[in-house]
Parts: sequence; structure tokens; C-alpha cells
Amino acid sequence: MTPEEKLASLGLTLPSAPVPVANYVPFRWAGNLLYLSGQGPKRTDGTYKAGRLGRDMTIEDGYAEARLTTLNMLAVAKQALGELSRIEAVVKLLGMVNAEPDFGDHPKVINGCSDLLVEVLGEAGRHARSAVGMGSLPNRMAVEIEAILLIRN
Amino acid sequence: MTPEEKLASLGLTLPSAPVPVANYVPFRWAGNLLYLSGQGPKRTDGTYKAGRLGRDMTIEDGYAEARLTTLNMLAVAKQALGELSRIEAVVKLLGMVNAEPDFGDHPKVINGCSDLLVEVLGEAGRHARSAVGMGSLPNRMAVEIEAILLIRN
Amino acid sequence: MTPEEKLASLGLTLPSAPVPVANYVPFRWAGNLLYLSGQGPKRTDGTYKAGRLGRDMTIEDGYAEARLTTLNMLAVAKQALGELSRIEAVVKLLGMVNAEPDFGDHPKVINGCSDLLVEVLGEAGRHARSAVGMGSLPNRMAVEIEAILLIRN
Ligand SMILES: [Ca+2]
Repeated sequence: MTPEEKLASLGLTLPSAPVPVANYVPFRWAGNLLYLSGQGPKRTDGTYKAGRLGRDMTIEDGYAEARLTTLNMLAVAKQALGELSRIEAVVKLLGMVNAEPDFGDHPKVINGCSDLLVEVLGEAGRHARSAVGMGSLPNRMAVEIEAILLIRN
Repeated sequence: MTPEEKLASLGLTLPSAPVPVANYVPFRWAGNLLYLSGQGPKRTDGTYKAGRLGRDMTIEDGYAEARLTTLNMLAVAKQALGELSRIEAVVKLLGMVNAEPDFGDHPKVINGCSDLLVEVLGEAGRHARSAVGMGSLPNRMAVEIEAILLIRN
Repeated sequence: MTPEEKLASLGLTLPSAPVPVANYVPFRWAGNLLYLSGQGPKRTDGTYKAGRLGRDMTIEDGYAEARLTTLNMLAVAKQALGELSRIEAVVKLLGMVNAEPDFGDHPKVINGCSDLLVEVLGEAGRHARSAVGMGSLPNRMAVEIEAILLIRN
């Protein structure tokens, strides 16, 4: 089953990849490494839900925000690669959570990304990661996640 | 026009590159990737302006802090490379903004870096990036930015 | 003297490397780069001390937490490599400090990591780095540090 077929079997659809609107781009190559710009849980209407763990968002909802963010990341990867099966490995994630100072369950939130990556990509989806707490995030969104992908020759 | 000539045409001067004072260094090579240590908006007298977006610094001033930070980054790159034209691509930035919890315009601040990189380096200056909010930064400065550069063989 | 012998001469012991408990892994390869997942100052009993610089932890204690974190990082590297002498260079650290908004001495805390890396690995231990302040960290711990290592062919 290709990653695209796996997504469909999970009832998930990749959104359109973002159009660059500034002097930065959604992805950049360095040899066979593909760097993805940080993505967030953007809805299909282009908006973000504001949320801060430990204040006004539950871990369950944070997990869902991370899962949605992952669809946005996979959309960018697909735009760069054509086929998601070209991903040899998700090397590294930086999973950033908008949270109160005494929140400590960032890993449970970022699992919303890690779990989906392995569901869709299998072993290629396993990755090194850091799950950490941010002072704030763009659009007051709950999570932002960036990734480095290793692409097959 | 070389990047150095472009800087001059913009009326900008690169400061002296920092002298390492601890067990870390301003840049480190890995093959043809050049990793820059995080830089901030250090003035020529060695000081930093303390600032926190959403509290005591405007977005316009934050943009200027990011632009100054970029000059410091380019100074380190020039020290490592000799000529800035050796930069094939700015692969990835992590743009970190010292901000209040409900600040959400980090991209506008980090544009102060992204815009200058493209002004000076042209297409080589386009990069993947994440623009995020920090709980605090060294010297209570407003921004810290780290970069990965791909260097021509 | 090998890095392992140097550790012993400093009276330091590497803990057991962590067992992956989720869909992410403690390290991931990309060519001859080894990416380490963020590690914290986990005690041998598996617990973490909660701490926030500028609030309830001194810089001296933060330095010690960073030093302990480095032992946990080296334990993962040893598990990946067999011998720490295979490390050609610690390329880049991201040193993340749990701190109050007006804390500004993140570098002094992360020096607890940088100093130990150079003590143990010599010149190979010199690295580019960013030392920054986080809104919060998992388990309310004081520091989290991730690293990219360049490994000898
Ligand atoms: Ca933060």
C-alpha cells in the first residue's frame, strides 16, 4: 500500500500545499535531505484555531492539532516529491507546543504527529524528535512542527 | 553584483565576526553544509537591546532587530567562506522571537531576516524556515536566528 | 585516551540508553550525520527534577542539569556507534532552557553541556550552538538538548 493509499484508507485527505507568500519557501533541498518549513494545524479554510496547552486546550485536542499539522506537512512533501514513497526516512522532527509554563506533557501532544507518520509511512516514518514548549506561536496556534526528510536516491 | 557589492549598495556594513569565547564556535562544517550558531542583534559596541514583542517592542522594531541579526549572520558566513557568493543556498532558518504568550506575528518579525537574505543573495537566499516564539532569549534580546547553509563544491 | 576512558577519569558513568516507548527513536541516521532526539537531565531512577531558571533554579544547578543531560546524550550516541571515538564532530546543539521571561543567561546554563563535550571528545566536541529559552519543557525539566553529530567514514 503506498502512503497515499494508506491515507485514503484512514479517511484522510491531503490539503493543497501552501503557496509561498514571502521570501521563504515551504521546502528546500540539500543533497538528498529535504527540509520542511514549520507547518501548523491550518484548516482547509486557511484559518488556525488559537490554543495554549494547560490554559484553554486539552491534550486530546492538542494531539488532534498535531495530527492535522502532519497532513499539512505531508502535503508539502508530496508537492516536493510527487510520491510520498520517495521518503526513505523522516530523520528529525522539532515539535513545538504553545503551552503554559508548568505544562509538561508536550510528548503526548506531538505524538499526534509521530503516530500518523508511522501509520502512513511505516518504518520510514520513525524519526528522532524533540517535543518542547514555546512561549508563543504564529496565529496563536497550538503547535508548529518542522521536519527533515531523507529522500531515496 | 556580488553579495558584498549588494550589501554596499544597500548602505550596509558587515561587522567583525564574533570571537569564540567558550567551548562552542560560530560555525561548524558537515560536508558541504555550514551550520551557523544562533546570532542575535548585537550592536557594534557589543551590546544588545532588550526587547519582547507584544510587551515593549513594536513589530517594526522587531523587523529591524532581525535585519541587524542577519548582518551578524552574514559576517560569520563571510569569515567561514571568504566570499558570500560561495553560498549555493540558505537551506533553513530557525527564527526565534522573544514574545508575550499571545503574540502571533512572529513571521512579520523574522521577515527582517528573510527579506535581507534574498536582497543580498538573490535566489540563493530563499530558504525554508520556522518563525516561532521563545519564552526568553540570551541578554533579553528580541530575536535569535540560526541557519544552515549549502555551500558550492 | 578514548572518550570512554576520559569519562571514567572524570568519575562519570554513562547511564543505560533509553528504550523507545513511542513512534519516535532516540537517534536517526542521514548519511554520515547522526541526529539525536532531545534529551533531558533524567536521573538514573528515571525521574526528572522540575526547575525553571529565574524562578526556582540557580544557574549553577542549571549547569549541572545540562551536564547530566550530556551524559544521557553520550549514552545514546554510544548505543548508536559502539565507540564514541567514531564521532568526528559534534556539529550543532540546540540547548533549550526552561526559564522565566526576563532570564538572559541561557549560555551559562548550556555551557554545562558544551564544556563536558569538549572535556570528553576534545576538538571533536567543539560545536555550533544556540542556547535559548523555552516556555516550558516535558516533565517541567530545566533543560532539553538535541544534537547533530558527524560520524567518521
Ligand atoms: Ca519558548
